[in-house]
Amino acid sequence: MVSAERPAPLGVLAAGGRVPIMVADAAVRAGRPVFIVALRGLALPDVTRFPHLMVPIGMPGRVFNAFRGAGCREIVIVGSATRPRIRDIRLDFRALQLITRYARAMLGGDDKLLTWLVRLFEAEGFTVRGAHEIAPELLAPAGALGRHRPSALDEADIAIGIDYLATAGRFDIGQAVVVVNHCIVAVEAAEGTDLMLARVAELRAAGRLRLSGRAGVLVKTPKPAQDRRVDMPAIGSSTVAGAVRAELRGIAVAAGETLIADAAETAAAAERAGLFVTGIALKAGPA
Amino acid sequence: MVSAERPAPLGVLAAGGRVPIMVADAAVRAGRPVFIVALRGLALPDVTRFPHLMVPIGMPGRVFNAFRGAGCREIVIVGSATRPRIRDIRLDFRALQLITRYARAMLGGDDKLLTWLVRLFEAEGFTVRGAHEIAPELLAPAGALGRHRPSALDEADIAIGIDYLATAGRFDIGQAVVVVNHCIVAVEAAEGTDLMLARVAELRAAGRLRLSGRAGVLVKTPKPAQDRRVDMPAIGSSTVAGAVRAELRGIAVAAGETLIADAAETAAAAERAGLFVTGIALKAGPA
Repeated sequence: MVSAERPAPLGVLAAGGRVPIMVADAAVRAGRPVFIVALRGLALPDVTRFPHLMVPIGMPGRVFNAFRGAGCREIVIVGSATRPRIRDIRLDFRALQLITRYARAMLGGDDKLLTWLVRLFEAEGFTVRGAHEIAPELLAPAGALGRHRPSALDEADIAIGIDYLATAGRFDIGQAVVVVNHCIVAVEAAEGTDLMLARVAELRAAGRLRLSGRAGVLVKTPKPAQDRRVDMPAIGSSTVAGAVRAELRGIAVAAGETLIADAAETAAAAERAGLFVTGIALKAGPA
Repeated sequence: MVSAERPAPLGVLAAGGRVPIMVADAAVRAGRPVFIVALRGLALPDVTRFPHLMVPIGMPGRVFNAFRGAGCREIVIVGSATRPRIRDIRLDFRALQLITRYARAMLGGDDKLLTWLVRLFEAEGFTVRGAHEIAPELLAPAGALGRHRPSALDEADIAIGIDYLATAGRFDIGQAVVVVNHCIVAVEAAEGTDLMLARVAELRAAGRLRLSGRAGVLVKTPKPAQDRRVDMPAIGSSTVAGAVRAELRGIAVAAGETLIADAAETAAAAERAGLFVTGIALKAGPA
């Protein structure tokens, strides 16, 4: 991947969270220069450590031009993106062209939107790479991340969660559930994982979930049809914090198919809180 | 069903909402006396129009004795029951006996809990009847309840919701979803329909769901394995109010398998709000 000549810089379209920065760091470590187009309001200030351009959401013309100007041919689209408030979005001319052409695709679920985003970059001549191709060290390994391990009951809850997510995956909804004592108590859809965890915390505080002490598991897997290049599920220390507030016993993710932002920090937060974080091998062999 | 002699009174174990009262009224209209055991904190004050006893939640010994004392042999268990705060529950001796015997079943999902409740009454010698058997006029008819009708897009959203609920039903989670423009944006689990609708309203207010004007449908169906005698889904004017706050276009329920509390009032509220309420025939013939 790294040629003897100075390689073309990797383009990183950076949304929120630490993953974009970790991908950029991994590329630089591997000897490859990086150019970041950071989405204003989403990307962390830390992206300014790298050659970058801040661009408001809704300006694809500027994004394409910036990547081309920096000589990028390969692009990684990465980071968390709670959907922006529509009134905060200003559109450039290219966006308006694209919207009239692709309005249909943009009305679909997350999957459709992200698939459409990939096609858009490809139509502009870029190659879209997955964050995990650049930084495989971000992928959740199989097995427990730290000292804490799921109990037999937790394992049963995890199996239920995985079964549900595989079953419901074709509906292109969320990719996470909370399972407590064989019972699915929360399903993620448009609200995202953090708000779903907050809901579980509220239901417990209101006594609507009759549990004492730590109970239940957050299970998060990729949707079956998901394009791993753009929509790999991710967890991090904020996920751990949410799980602690929901008084869960742990977090289960798909090994090799989930990004862990700041694995060391995430593992330490889980260790301190007494929470397990475990990677489940969902596939028999490499896909 | 109504014998020439004075028939044994119908026992109604009344939880929240207007449905228990409507069932009692229907029985009385059909010439049958009624005795209500009303769950304190859940049942509406209006139940006191009928012979009744108020009983705190957690007192099955008192419930059985009251029904026996009133000469009831057939029981209807009906009404909405957001799970009570555990600290508000006092248990009688019978409850403690039952809990030690049935703790496992009680830890399961709603289905399991309600199935267990039916078995409990049956084990005590009662026959459990469905609210719809006593008051079939409460069942949602097929087709639109009022003047407003689903559009072609709404029909497509309804089909997605029904497909999802049939698929996910075996997991014993909620029985409702919100579908907007081919996309499932909220799935009900332990929080219940009202809180799910409130979440959609919040996501819209926060701009996290990019929609303008009325959009989307609440789809609510019975779970495939559900015991229709105790867990028939129900809607009412508060459901209409929630759908209006979530800026939905309408509500779709399973015709003949959904109770509508105060159909006239519910229909009027929907009419005023410009919302459709429609019954979908899910079955080819009678089950």
